[in-house]
This record gives sequence, structure tokens and C-alpha cells, in this order.
Amino acid sequence: MPAFSRLVRFLAKDGRTYYGDAILPHGVTDIAKAVQAKVIHGSVFGKHDVTDQVMDIRLLLAPLAQEDVKTVRCLGLNYEQHAKESNMAIPKYPVVFYKPMTSLSGPTDAIPIHPMAQEGTGLDYECELVAVIGKACADVSESSALDYVLGYAVGNDVSHREWQIQRGGGQWSLGKGFDGWAPYGPGIVSANLIKDPQALQISTKLNGKTVQNSSTKDQIFGVAQTIAFLSRGTTLLPGDLIFTGTPQGVGMGRKPQLWLKDGDVVEVALEGVGTCTNKVEFTKAKPKL
Amino acid sequence: MPAFSRLVRFLAKDGRTYYGDAILPHGVTDIAKAVQAKVIHGSVFGKHDVTDQVMDIRLLLAPLAQEDVKTVRCLGLNYEQHAKESNMAIPKYPVVFYKPMTSLSGPTDAIPIHPMAQEGTGLDYECELVAVIGKACADVSESSALDYVLGYAVGNDVSHREWQIQRGGGQWSLGKGFDGWAPYGPGIVSANLIKDPQALQISTKLNGKTVQNSSTKDQIFGVAQTIAFLSRGTTLLPGDLIFTGTPQGVGMGRKPQLWLKDGDVVEVALEGVGTCTNKVEFTKAKPKL
Repeated sequence: MPAFSRLVRFLAKDGRTYYGDAILPHGVTDIAKAVQAKVIHGSVFGKHDVTDQVMDIRLLLAPLAQEDVKTVRCLGLNYEQHAKESNMAIPKYPVVFYKPMTSLSGPTDAIPIHPMAQEGTGLDYECELVAVIGKACADVSESSALDYVLGYAVGNDVSHREWQIQRGGGQWSLGKGFDGWAPYGPGIVSANLIKDPQALQISTKLNGKTVQNSSTKDQIFGVAQTIAFLSRGTTLLPGDLIFTGTPQGVGMGRKPQLWLKDGDVVEVALEGVGTCTNKVEFTKAKPKL
Repeated sequence: MPAFSRLVRFLAKDGRTYYGDAILPHGVTDIAKAVQAKVIHGSVFGKHDVTDQVMDIRLLLAPLAQEDVKTVRCLGLNYEQHAKESNMAIPKYPVVFYKPMTSLSGPTDAIPIHPMAQEGTGLDYECELVAVIGKACADVSESSALDYVLGYAVGNDVSHREWQIQRGGGQWSLGKGFDGWAPYGPGIVSANLIKDPQALQISTKLNGKTVQNSSTKDQIFGVAQTIAFLSRGTTLLPGDLIFTGTPQGVGMGRKPQLWLKDGDVVEVALEGVGTCTNKVEFTKAKPKL
């Protein structure tokens, strides 16, 4: 069991990066609003202590260091109303794809739109509950699956529909895997604090206007069922992230369709966790590394 | 530029694991037949030295430690004749999917077939050239792409066609991502030694009988073109593996179809690199971790 309540990774005023347990002002539930945290010593997946050392947060970072994440799995078509708006059948088994580690970014980072993703149309948002695996597991039952969850975050499974669907030859990962296309955070709320991950409000605001607003109770495969399924024949490791799908209201499903553009601000929110607020930023190609 | 010619990772007689530069007996080109190696000190992706310390190889392991691999990307339908046997159109862009780190295994490891993958039909083999990224790259040109390759190995993209295609909702990763379903090796031949990755014989033997036999010149997207494409908007990291697709002759494409069964021995081979020889082993579910 983790010792923390709300794990954050942050840049402090001394210019260094720390893991901490966010301190929320009275009445505040959004981790993004935390201004201080108690420093954590040790491994967040193993033995660790929440110390009494309180530090000011200069900037919240992606809640796990990139080297602490092993695999990023994502579910497609996992909300009933979203499957309907996509004109797809309710899947019989979870539909699984991956994002690379380089897609991960923090709760206030810009979402870089590379020239390749400025081609064609279909730049879209997807608010998702992200389950973080805390202990290695294989062949776990649905009834014990949540024991392996470290906690929950909210993420945005940024997608380019044309690269995802038409140009990707039917395989979704490429059009969802560009650098910085999986902002998540603002922290990881301990599984101790979220007894039922299937009863949380989840939503997206685009430039302040609500465009997705649903509940995780609409998930076709709940978190426990998903982990039990994914762990059959495949060992899940501490630090694996599971983006558990998005509800209805994505740009692709709207009439008329609604695509992200340069400068748009997307805010994804999960009840009990908080918000990630990311600005869409059209970029140039990178200089040669 | 790596200092080694043929990178191996091996268990030595002292019970410890080393990186080494394989010593091949005169006239032998298959790294799997190496019995000794010169120990390598340092980081294989950074500064390293091939020492004069010669050690006996007890067992060749997967050529990179799991923690040294970041992302495993795979191409589908990347050989013209294989696209034809699959009744699929020649893709306009590389078709990309992922395997998890836990699928990686060594050149003589058994391929575990979990009860989930014993369901349905369609257990298949796929010999593939595996390109190993040596330096971080983003937005590289096709003409400079091979400068970022550490070297090449051969791998088997083990697949369960029913989970991959019908049950996977069209997303291929799940039915190709079980534990141990990406054996590769037997070592990594330095890119210095393979000037043209598009002129290598690649083949599979099933229980001693040749079932795939082609050349990487049949690749639709060559290694350089693939890396240039994948690095657009997506940073490739040292230790990323790219399984570059399989030629014709897979079990799914044969008439009648030919599926792997318990006890089968599959040998994938790549010219200038060597062989991975893996036995298919039906297993039980894992005890709870």
C-alpha cells in the first residue's frame, strides 16, 4: 500500500525534481492547484516514506519519471456512448493499442503538433482515466485486480484521426503516438482513496467549453476487468500505465466534426484527481539531434 | 560508432551476466555458435571498450537487458510477397504496431504459449530483421537514418492470428504481445559490418523444414526509410527496437494453413547475423505473483 495520498512529481524552487505527497488547501480537490508537497523518500513502487519536509511546488511534472514507466497501454472504444458515436460495434474483448514513452508529458505541458500531424485533418482530444500499475501481476482475477493498482490519474489520448485510421493502415498507435501526445497527471491519487473507479465523473473542456462529460460507469470493461484481461499471458509491471478509453463527445463524433487548432486549450478532468490543462502548439520539425 | 562487431549478452560460467563481443570460430558466421566473447565495459549505447578479457559463454541471452530497451515498434505488411499472401493492399505508409518489453526473450528461450493463446487457432511465426537504435533521433532524413542504427538482429514476431485480427478488434498488438513472444538475437551485428540492410537473406525453419526464405530487398519500406518515417514527430531512443516485418511463407498465408503446436521448434535466421532457435511450449496460467 502506498504511503502517499496524492503523488506528484514536481520541480521545486531549488531547480531540482522531487516526488511528493501533494498538500491541498482546504476545500480544494484538484491536485493541479497544490502549491506545496511533502517530499517522498524511497521508491514510489516499493518502500517509501512521506517525510515532514514541505516544499513549494514551482511546476507539476508528469507524475512518473519517464524511466519509471515501462509500457503505456490504451483501450479503444471502451465507453458505450463513444462506441455508438464512432459507429462501431460494442467490442467483445478490450481493444488494445500502445503509446510510446516519448508521448508522455506533464499536466501543463504544451501538446506539440509536428508538421506531420498538421497534414490532413482530424486532430482530436480524448479524456481518459489512467490506471497506474503498482506491483507486477500476471493472471490476476478480476476480484483481486485492483490490489495491483498504485493509483489513478487523468490523461489526454491526443489523436490524429487521419493518421490513426486511414493512413495508419488500420493500426491506431502511430496517429496517437507523437511526442507529447499523452499528457497525464496532475498527480496520481492513491488507490486507497478511490474505492470505486467506476463511479467518477470525467470530462473535457475545450477553450473553456465542456465537450465531453460522462462517468466511468459507462465503461464497457471496468478497470478491474481490464487488468484481469491484460494480465492473461502478459505480465504487467510496476509503472505500466493503462489509458482506459474515452467517453462520447470527441471531435470526430460531433456534428459538425470539431478539430483542434493551434492555440486551443484542452482541459481534461477526473473526479477526485483533478485536471490537466494543455495548450495545442503547432511546431516546426526538430533540428537534427 | 560501436567498438564491438557482434554484441552479445551472456550468462558466464561464474553465474553472472555480461555484455561481450562474440568470438566466432574460423568459418562460422552464426553468432549462436559463439562459445567465447570479449567482455565489454561501459554503456553499449555510449562510451564502451571491448576488453581483452575472454570469457566462456554458458548461455546467450536477449542481446539487450530489458531495462535498456525503451520501445519495441513493429511493421506489418512490409514485404511485397507477404502483403500479397495476406490478400492485403501494398500499404502507402508503414503500418506500425507495438510489442511490450515483456515480450522480449533470448535466442534459445522457449516461446511460452499461455492458455489464452491456446484458445482459437492461428499460432504463427514471423522471421524479421530487427534494427536497434543506437542514438536518439528525431526528424532524420532517409540518407542519414542508418547513422542512428547500433546494429541488427533477427527476431520472431510470434503471432496468434485470431487474437491479432478477429478478437483484437482490428488492433494487432494484443495477439502479438504475450510474454516471450519476441525472441531476438542471437546478438547484434554492428551496423559497421552490414553496409546494406536491404540485401540480406532471411528465413524460417519449422522443425528443420524451410517455411520462409526471402531477402530484405523485398521490403516495401527499407530500414532507412522506416527510421526516417518513424522519427517524424516521434523521438526514437537508444535501445528502441524496430521489427521490420516478415516475408511471405507465414502459416496464415499457406494452403493449407500451418499453425504452430506444442513442441515445435522454430528457427529464424538472418544473413550475417545468425539464428534464434525457440521451442513452442504450451504452459499453464502463472501462479499469482
